[in-house]
Parts: sequence; C-alpha cells; structure tokens
Amino acid sequence: MKTFSNNQLERYPLYLRLLSDLRDKGETVVSSPYIAAKLGFSEELVRKDLQAVCVESGRPRKGRSIDDTISDLEAFLGYSEPMRAILVGAGSLGGALLRFPGFESSGLYIEAAFDSSPDHYGKQIAGKDVYPMNELSDYIKRHNIKLAVLTVPSFAAQEVAEILAKAGIEGIWNFAPVALEISPKVTVENINLASSLAVLGHRMKERRNKHHG
Amino acid sequence: MKTFSNNQLERYPLYLRLLSDLRDKGETVVSSPYIAAKLGFSEELVRKDLQAVCVESGRPRKGRSIDDTISDLEAFLGYSEPMRAILVGAGSLGGALLRFPGFESSGLYIEAAFDSSPDHYGKQIAGKDVYPMNELSDYIKRHNIKLAVLTVPSFAAQEVAEILAKAGIEGIWNFAPVALEISPKVTVENINLASSLAVLGHRMKERRNKHHG
Repeated sequence: MKTFSNNQLERYPLYLRLLSDLRDKGETVVSSPYIAAKLGFSEELVRKDLQAVCVESGRPRKGRSIDDTISDLEAFLGYSEPMRAILVGAGSLGGALLRFPGFESSGLYIEAAFDSSPDHYGKQIAGKDVYPMNELSDYIKRHNIKLAVLTVPSFAAQEVAEILAKAGIEGIWNFAPVALEISPKVTVENINLASSLAVLGHRMKERRNKHHG
Repeated sequence: MKTFSNNQLERYPLYLRLLSDLRDKGETVVSSPYIAAKLGFSEELVRKDLQAVCVESGRPRKGRSIDDTISDLEAFLGYSEPMRAILVGAGSLGGALLRFPGFESSGLYIEAAFDSSPDHYGKQIAGKDVYPMNELSDYIKRHNIKLAVLTVPSFAAQEVAEILAKAGIEGIWNFAPVALEISPKVTVENINLASSLAVLGHRMKERRNKHHG
C-alpha cells in the first residue's frame, strides 16, 4: 500500500471541495494548472497528487473530467463507505459538532453521543440520542463503532480514551486539548481550536509590534 | 521581541487549560514534571516553555503557584485584552461557531456576523446580529475590528478575504478549505476539519490493512 504524508492527505479534501464547487457551477472539465492556481499549490504537486489516486489521468489540453475525478477522490477518501462514529462529551463544543450538518459530506456520521452529566444524557441533540457514560463500551461493541469524536474536558480525556480503546475503537478525533497516551493500535488525530487561536493572536501581535515599534 | 515557533505557541493553551482544571479542583501549586507527565511532553520542554513567558520562576521542590502561572499564561496569550472579531459566513459551520460558548475563555469575542444570503442576514444567531455582506467593510472600519473568522464556502473565500484585507483586517482565522492569497500584512491561520478527518480515516485504514492483509 502506497504511503501518503499528512500534508498530502490534507490536500485531497481541498481538491474535492474545489471540484464540487465547479460542478455545482455547471463545469465539467478542469485542468491541473487551474486547480493549482486556485489553491495556491504548484502544478507539479497537483498533478502528482491526482495521479496517485485517480484511475483515469487527465489528457493534455483537454483536462480531466470533473465527475470522474470527484468519484476517484471520494473513493480514495473513503466517502463511499461512511465513517460511523460516536461522540463523547455533549457539552458546548460537542453540542456544536452534533449540530453541524457539514460532516456528512466528509463521510462522517455521528450516530450517538455520550455524556457523564444528567444535564445532557437522556436528551437528544440534533436528533441524536445522548446516553450516559456507563453505556459507552456496550454501545461501541454492539454497534461495531470504530471511530470516536472526543470532546470531553481535558481532565477526563485520558480516562475516556482508555475506555474507548478497550471497547474496540480504532480512531479518535480528539478535540480535548491534551496529548493522549494510548495503545499504538488507536489512531489519534488532534484538533485544537484554542491552540490555533493562540498562534494567530501571537503572530498578529508580532507583526503589529514590528510595524509600530 | 522573542520569537516562538508555532509548536511552542500551540502548547501554551494546553498548559493554561491543565492549570485551570487543577485550580478548579482546589490545587494551588504544580510542578513542571507533573505538567510534563500529564501532557506527554518532556520536563525540559515544559520548564523552558514556562520560563519563557512566566514572570516568577518555580522553586525546586516547592513547585510553582498555579494562580501566578495562570496569570502569566493569560497575559502572554493576550487573554487580558480580548480579541474582538467578526465572522463571515453564517451558514452551518459559522452558525455552530457563533453558538459555541467556549471561545470567550480563549479570549475571542465574535461581535457580529455577515452573510450574503437573506436566509441568514437580518436575524440573530446566539444573540449576535447577522448583517448583509455590503455592510462588512463599513462595520470593520467603524468598530475597529482586526480579526475575522472566515466560514464562507470555498469558492467565495478568496474574494471575501480581499475585502477583509482592504477594510483593515490584520488576522483571518480561516475555516474555508482554500489557501488564501493575500497581502503579507494579514496573518492567516487555517483550520480544516475535513482535511483532519481525511488524515484520520486514511491512517485507520492503513493500520487495518497492515493487520489483516
């Protein structure tokens, strides 16, 4: 199996989004140089990325079929077999993610949520049932869930991650701002909004000081 | 002015979150080795990170004051002077971000939103007014806003980013899955949920193939 770098993998959803937008506008054919210019990558990079995952290659001068390329990208990204997931931590961030309808176009289907607080469990958020934590392991096994979205407070994240690993979860999309120590069998991908904001705020301040001081 | 790497900047919110959790539990003192173990970093790294931004250093054996360290981290991260922002694109993702109450603890205050669709403007989301796009430049100038959260569809992102730059925006927190081509005076920080998911999904698949095939 070919291995892909994180950077390369991160580019495929950008291609897919751009091509879907073009298709929505009625376009049927696209060229690598056009994609490269739109996304700010080199032509060489775009050509190689698409060649690595597309069945049919583009033809010089004619470009590539948008429909075929979208199908190839979706197949590569696994959007044809949706990722079924549960979410743990149905507080403010978890609730926002449950309400966000955009995930399904990225192949993510959050089926149920779990929370330790009676303020949250026993209810529905965006049509999804929120269950108490003591039903977590059983649900994962019974429904054969492999992916968990982790949105618990940081102090609870490690403990919950261990429960998830034991129940058979293979991937954790971690929004809790901690580095999880977990079985190497589990893939962890971190999203940290506060860290991203900290970088942005600091870089803005740096630039301002450079110009004014 | 000292320069910080992105990786280092991204760690400060993690320290702050951990220490806030400890304070909430009634703790008053913490050691670098404890922080290092909790977050999965080396002791050396934690000590250097904290020394770089904290006024008072920890004392061997006694550890460092949680309250003082929190104040130092908040001052460094600029949480004492909140980042006032506007959000452009009040659709599904933008709406979720407007409803998410967690940003204020990271120093981000979204004051108003803008959208090109009459389905969205003229309304309020989470108590914040949504205005039509033609009021965007004027609002930014009149309210002296320097930061924009960008949650428009990818095909609109570049055009909106140029309007933002012209109106005086200095930083863009970009959730649109495109690489913005913009004045070097504007700092751009990208968050791409679909790309992060693509990495996670692919790594899970790789691992499964390795074990089963």
